[in-house]
Amino acid sequence: MRAATYRGDRNISVQSLPVADPAPDQVQLSVAYVGLCGTDLHVFHGDMDRRVSMPAVLGHEMSGTISAVGASVTGWAPGERVSVIPLVWDGTCPACRAGHQHICQNLDFVGIDSPGALQERWNVRPDTLVRLPDTLSLRHAALTEPVAVAVHDVRRGEVAAGDRVVVLGGGPIGVLIATVAAEFGAEVVVVEPDAHRRAVVASLGFRAIDPGAGDLSGWVDSWSGGAGADVVFEVSGAASAVLSATDLVKVRGRLVVVAIHGQPRPVDLHRIFWRELTVVGARVYQRADFDTAVELLARQVVPADRLITRTVPLEETGAALTALGHGAELKVLVELERQREAA
Amino acid sequence: MRAATYRGDRNISVQSLPVADPAPDQVQLSVAYVGLCGTDLHVFHGDMDRRVSMPAVLGHEMSGTISAVGASVTGWAPGERVSVIPLVWDGTCPACRAGHQHICQNLDFVGIDSPGALQERWNVRPDTLVRLPDTLSLRHAALTEPVAVAVHDVRRGEVAAGDRVVVLGGGPIGVLIATVAAEFGAEVVVVEPDAHRRAVVASLGFRAIDPGAGDLSGWVDSWSGGAGADVVFEVSGAASAVLSATDLVKVRGRLVVVAIHGQPRPVDLHRIFWRELTVVGARVYQRADFDTAVELLARQVVPADRLITRTVPLEETGAALTALGHGAELKVLVELERQREAA
Ligand SMILES: [Zn+2]
Ligand SMILES: [Zn+2]
Repeated sequence: MRAATYRGDRNISVQSLPVADPAPDQVQLSVAYVGLCGTDLHVFHGDMDRRVSMPAVLGHEMSGTISAVGASVTGWAPGERVSVIPLVWDGTCPACRAGHQHICQNLDFVGIDSPGALQERWNVRPDTLVRLPDTLSLRHAALTEPVAVAVHDVRRGEVAAGDRVVVLGGGPIGVLIATVAAEFGAEVVVVEPDAHRRAVVASLGFRAIDPGAGDLSGWVDSWSGGAGADVVFEVSGAASAVLSATDLVKVRGRLVVVAIHGQPRPVDLHRIFWRELTVVGARVYQRADFDTAVELLARQVVPADRLITRTVPLEETGAALTALGHGAELKVLVELERQREAA
Repeated sequence: MRAATYRGDRNISVQSLPVADPAPDQVQLSVAYVGLCGTDLHVFHGDMDRRVSMPAVLGHEMSGTISAVGASVTGWAPGERVSVIPLVWDGTCPACRAGHQHICQNLDFVGIDSPGALQERWNVRPDTLVRLPDTLSLRHAALTEPVAVAVHDVRRGEVAAGDRVVVLGGGPIGVLIATVAAEFGAEVVVVEPDAHRRAVVASLGFRAIDPGAGDLSGWVDSWSGGAGADVVFEVSGAASAVLSATDLVKVRGRLVVVAIHGQPRPVDLHRIFWRELTVVGARVYQRADFDTAVELLARQVVPADRLITRTVPLEETGAALTALGHGAELKVLVELERQREAA
């Protein structure tokens, strides 16, 4: 079978590997589509070489079909269409024992810490599987993982119907958070300095604001009748966004930290004190978030066809990551073999 | 009557003012004791001159006795012993309408934004009054306000029995937070760089740790069986404490911002993301916090006699604030007239 392997700085090549039978407690998947994301890009750029064992098979956003089932696995059969929750926890650390397995202190993030989906046959644990409804195409189902991220973020934000929500950052995750928050009944504004991204956000039906165009805090104040936003999502990763974010939140409102910040950022702690704000981190997802993500994709609440800007064969994985790094794409899918279903 | 008035940079003088009768909707108090705190010190140092109208009567931590009652006031009678919640809200702003009157967007903090308790007769709104039980002396009752601050902080931290709690900063508020958290069933450690303050904290029965003595994060890790602290209180106001605070908190744990930070501080947002931490601001108090504070003082849970390091007459208010600024005192009380009750 073919697999794309990362072998160090910007080097991904396709090689032929033997197909491994699933262990008795594993399920073998025939991988259909794999989405590429910012984390893959970090690995591709060599930023996470201390964490990955090379040659590394990346890929943690996927859809596929069960091709074989290990002897001791029950409840799953060949032919079933699935996505995978790419988390394996130890079950024994303090976080796991407190019920927070999804952020286990020794979490194995599949596709980074262990082999991922960029291979034709992939053996996984059955407890990572998520069943897909017939109404959801494998192509759209490849978005289940990033949609689950957004669902988790919105749940951590405790977004409720009628809330005014500000999303700082109009990339793929920002757009998905806006989509989920709107579906949960919120009124949403996306703040994005890049004009091209703003145009994409606007074309998806969201209000897109340029933070450089004027007094953002004053705008949010007027928009919210002097209260401030109920929930603000920091998805930009920019220091300037962090510093202004606290100004946008209402008394006792919430600020959700979604973006990766590689270094400490200046934060207006006085504002957090003064308005009794709540700042929460949101990382990965829980099974309920995947279930909701599948449902939102099946109901076509998520504009999957608009978000998937390109589909490439496995051989073009490296070139696709290079293009992703240039910022011109929203979501690029790798198609493992020509799928029979309609796009 | 005598009143101590602030007239600009480090200038507090006692003057004679006419006694004003209470308005029909006011209650007149004969003030017994007034506590001096860090906020009074900020005013005294001229840091808040834009906010105070000079000559300003300071004082917002107090105890006293009702001396007269306005014609339309019901439910209160002369002779009753009381403390005052020094907050007056507008009732109409978005925060008030959402039920967060204690941090009204146009809050009048009595003793800063309007005249305070450093006067022999003080007219206040009856809805600010808190009744004192006979078992609580007026001297100890002067601590009701700072204890209510600590109760509010601990409630914002959602401290539960069995929690491991770290208090960063061993000043008066840090000690009170430690006291309340311990009373709520937590195991508490106070982190304080100053050796004298550490000695005071230790003499009150708390474990006191020097953050400069070693690897604080590693110590908390061992102490908590590898989990991290359930709740951390940032009471120090120091940038270094803020930066290290996030390292001490367990997965899904809480960091409470109590101290005033006059400028943005570098915060490890990656740790907030990675462990899904919650950071909350805690400001002033609600009536329930005052009720609990009165109860904790009456039950002598709070070591009031250890915290009150000095009692001075009104004429020495300025000198007492100067001494407070030198850091040698915990709590200094101003005694408005020689009280008949036993100390
Ligand atoms: Zn674990
Ligand atoms: Zn208000």
